[in-house]
Amino acid sequence: MEYRVPFGVRAHSYSEEEITEALRIMRGSEPLTQGQNLREFEREIGRFANVPFAYGISSATAGLEIAASLCQLSEGDEVVIPAHTYTSSAYPFAKRGAAIVWADIDPITRVVTAETLESCVSARTKVIVVPHLYGYGVEMQEIMDLAQRYQALVIEDAAQAIGVRIGDAMAGTFGDAGVFSFHSHKNLTTLGEGGVLVTHDTKWGEIIPELRHNGHRPYSDDRSDYWIPAMTDVVLPKLNGEPIWPMNCCLGELACGIGIKLLARIDEINSKKRDRALHVIDSLVDFPELVFHREPSSRHNYYLLAARLDGVSRDQFIRRMAHHHSVQCVVQYYPLYRYPFYRELGFGEAVVPETDKFYDNMVSFPFSHVLSEHQIDYVIEATRETLAWLRAQ
Amino acid sequence: MEYRVPFGVRAHSYSEEEITEALRIMRGSEPLTQGQNLREFEREIGRFANVPFAYGISSATAGLEIAASLCQLSEGDEVVIPAHTYTSSAYPFAKRGAAIVWADIDPITRVVTAETLESCVSARTKVIVVPHLYGYGVEMQEIMDLAQRYQALVIEDAAQAIGVRIGDAMAGTFGDAGVFSFHSHKNLTTLGEGGVLVTHDTKWGEIIPELRHNGHRPYSDDRSDYWIPAMTDVVLPKLNGEPIWPMNCCLGELACGIGIKLLARIDEINSKKRDRALHVIDSLVDFPELVFHREPSSRHNYYLLAARLDGVSRDQFIRRMAHHHSVQCVVQYYPLYRYPFYRELGFGEAVVPETDKFYDNMVSFPFSHVLSEHQIDYVIEATRETLAWLRAQ
Repeated sequence: MEYRVPFGVRAHSYSEEEITEALRIMRGSEPLTQGQNLREFEREIGRFANVPFAYGISSATAGLEIAASLCQLSEGDEVVIPAHTYTSSAYPFAKRGAAIVWADIDPITRVVTAETLESCVSARTKVIVVPHLYGYGVEMQEIMDLAQRYQALVIEDAAQAIGVRIGDAMAGTFGDAGVFSFHSHKNLTTLGEGGVLVTHDTKWGEIIPELRHNGHRPYSDDRSDYWIPAMTDVVLPKLNGEPIWPMNCCLGELACGIGIKLLARIDEINSKKRDRALHVIDSLVDFPELVFHREPSSRHNYYLLAARLDGVSRDQFIRRMAHHHSVQCVVQYYPLYRYPFYRELGFGEAVVPETDKFYDNMVSFPFSHVLSEHQIDYVIEATRETLAWLRAQ
Repeated sequence: MEYRVPFGVRAHSYSEEEITEALRIMRGSEPLTQGQNLREFEREIGRFANVPFAYGISSATAGLEIAASLCQLSEGDEVVIPAHTYTSSAYPFAKRGAAIVWADIDPITRVVTAETLESCVSARTKVIVVPHLYGYGVEMQEIMDLAQRYQALVIEDAAQAIGVRIGDAMAGTFGDAGVFSFHSHKNLTTLGEGGVLVTHDTKWGEIIPELRHNGHRPYSDDRSDYWIPAMTDVVLPKLNGEPIWPMNCCLGELACGIGIKLLARIDEINSKKRDRALHVIDSLVDFPELVFHREPSSRHNYYLLAARLDGVSRDQFIRRMAHHHSVQCVVQYYPLYRYPFYRELGFGEAVVPETDKFYDNMVSFPFSHVLSEHQIDYVIEATRETLAWLRAQ
């Protein structure tokens, strides 16, 4: 079905400067992976996020796979993860033998807090996974304090939160590692797929390049006989003396070249998206049936614009938006413990009342930069009509 | 160091039509992953290779990871792999618990044959991995017969062999699964990274989309309430009743869009590369010290142009080419059993005399389409001078 306002378009357009850069890279002859654009993109991300190690990767999921392997999980280790997140926040940890303990969310911000996590954390907790969902920066300092008390690692799933400030620091840079996604729908997309993995930890930072690229470890640069004994070495990466299996999840040069340009305007992209979110939220303030999380600062990049329906039927709302107004609203994120995937793994039980209540009543609006102002205003009008209609039922 | 003829440039240039297509995709608003270009690229690869299931993936390594997991290895299972190949042919199988048995190569073609494999295969053999190295199509039918006698699976690492014909069929389509690489250096590169995984096996083919994309399984398309209970399902993919962990290794729309265009001219790309290889080989025929594998048919796409030095020093050859002529020759492929990676895993022993002899005397020439005819002729002249000089030592 074709919608007048579809949900699944890309996140943003590319500027003429970005398109010109793509042309320049396509017309060159340099290698199209593992080259100077990767190095520059990583340097720029590191500078932007103020973090010493930043590595381009093929997806945030791949970054979470690497982060999960760096946690060196043993059978019986518990990993605390909110049930209200995308599946990639969770399954890399289950894959490595962890038992998942589902945390609940705060009903206002729809993300975890130290308080929602605390009841899940114990001496068995090896890792706490913190998704900055919707692009809202979780209150990290209290979570870091909690983790420290229990000697747990913290992995930030900042897939949706590029450029989000929490106080003076960036989302994704508080924990032991953080990932950002540059997937098609994200506020910054490196042409459809991509991500970056960041860490302050020197021991982690030094082996991520090996983990990302098949265990390759370059020999020193100054070998005159550069081919002896081979072009590069291949090692089994080690952390604290224990081996970690590598994978291959490199980010190509064109993606990195575009990423460099986009990073230079990500604050502007985020700011415009936030202004647009506030416009929608404030235009609907006379409908208390629709409960938004309003955050007018750089703490929120409004990757998504989600709301909870209060006192009216969410399903009737989406149905009328879709079939009467041709506006494609969606729902996110199905509580992970309900999926067959997690039920079969034995993680099908959770006590997460706020997660359940939010999911069962939530709606996520079409909200990409490529939608015109006219389309956004149309969504507002359609929403007003639909809510008025629901009141009259 | 800057070389007059460097090795590590990209494989080929992009045509104006391909660049125009990239612009068209960049300027659109459609999702930049999991879209119509992916579906069309997969359909075209399937048609080109005459195989019912073809799936775009982020790299050939990711495809080999999926293929290895589809083999459902148990502790003690043996996987027979040539020591003369890239590490990605091997480590996905070791990662899943297999014991690697290193096979030797044929000294003329530098790839495995049924004969070199036979001494390695036994009742414990679960999988035979066949790399079509250098872009030369291995004699598959005898290997398939051998595998059938031992009830072993066959995975073809056709990373280097897109478009290579073995009789009437394509390299990569004989075994239980095959992978192709579209990495920067390959004869067809989807802008730096990418690959495809193909299979004839219906059971494998049906779950690869789930394995590739986080266990996502779409609900049926015709749900009017498309958001109930969620936008898509997430499942633990199953083969023969046993679960297989998914990953995320999707190929973006721009990569696929360019891939479609390149696939339409891959036979021409391969043919030109082969013509160029034959030109080099035939220009050096009066130097029997340099032993090429000459194959004037579509059985070879000459992804690489490799030769063995006979009776003269390989290292002296490369040294003079690099430092006297500024031509960057390299060596490939360090016998895998010699790497720390495999030694530490307990796979540091191998009886592979032809592998050792070839590697220790081989040279791989700079041989990309982006090198000019002038550069190629310069390489020929430099080679002639170097070999004459070596004769005089």
